[in-house]
Amino acid sequence: MGRWEPDAQGRLGRAALELYLDPGYEQTTVADIAARAGVTERTFFRHFADKREVLFAGSAAFQQTVLSAIADHTEATTALAAAAAGMDAAAAFLQSSPDPTFARRRAAVIAANASLQERELLKLATVTSASASALVERGFEPDEAAVAAEAAMAAFRLAFERWIASDEPLDLRELVAEGVARFRSLA
Amino acid sequence: MGRWEPDAQGRLGRAALELYLDPGYEQTTVADIAARAGVTERTFFRHFADKREVLFAGSAAFQQTVLSAIADHTEATTALAAAAAGMDAAAAFLQSSPDPTFARRRAAVIAANASLQERELLKLATVTSASASALVERGFEPDEAAVAAEAAMAAFRLAFERWIASDEPLDLRELVAEGVARFRSLA
Repeated sequence: MGRWEPDAQGRLGRAALELYLDPGYEQTTVADIAARAGVTERTFFRHFADKREVLFAGSAAFQQTVLSAIADHTEATTALAAAAAGMDAAAAFLQSSPDPTFARRRAAVIAANASLQERELLKLATVTSASASALVERGFEPDEAAVAAEAAMAAFRLAFERWIASDEPLDLRELVAEGVARFRSLA
Repeated sequence: MGRWEPDAQGRLGRAALELYLDPGYEQTTVADIAARAGVTERTFFRHFADKREVLFAGSAAFQQTVLSAIADHTEATTALAAAAAGMDAAAAFLQSSPDPTFARRRAAVIAANASLQERELLKLATVTSASASALVERGFEPDEAAVAAEAAMAAFRLAFERWIASDEPLDLRELVAEGVARFRSLA
């Protein structure tokens, strides 16, 4: 394999996900992933720190999507509405993926492995805290911002679980909006 | 050390926490913990699967406290009120510890290590799901139960963070109640 490796990262990600589903995450080595993607192990390590990170390569873009939406939706007059705009953008981001089965297959791999579940929760907790900070930047009170960010993220997680579990195609943005509405009617 | 080891588990837990704070979690071995507690490594492994589990030995009791309170507070007429009763019991449980600095010192160890933070988040997510199931058992709708369990746990986590960060003694139960009230007024 020469230096010219078009979309090596994308191919590595797809190869890894296939192998993590079968034969399984624990059974797969970096060498296996590189071989299936047709690149060297060295190329793998140019793109990912380890095999776990392949599954979290989209985290930064996900967080950036949420934070940009919170900053941009200046018409949102409550912290929850602004936080919900962030999660609506996250839902749109996942739904617009060129491979609509990716999120579902990735979730199946994560659900089968406690250490991956833990990592996913920490990544989402990081997005929640960053969202709360973005809401404070927007001028909302810190306590209100923290609660709104938690509520919006919980609405997103519950919506996402339902979305990937459903056999029929559902609209993730609608599910998120319904979840946010449920938090709004907790009173 | 003979077979008679009064409160070996308690001594191991205290020894581990001291060592995890200084010299640090990564620097501490099971042999170090056993030596400080005055027991054999074999005794350590009779009580804990590994050094990480020492920090999570209280998780089952914590979850049981929450679930019992949800089941017992039959006067709670909304899912959020019942979920909040669970978190109030959890707060009382932590505050009534014979060593009131334990929770704070444990949190400092966890905050310093990403893999421990991840484990803590998974444990709390497990309590959240179990709470939602307990609310469904109580007759609340699954969607309402899930949102109430998430809101109550988020209120607990935010309250706990404030409680351990404060230099003055605060009432964790009051902080949890304030957090729940904030979720109630999200509308």
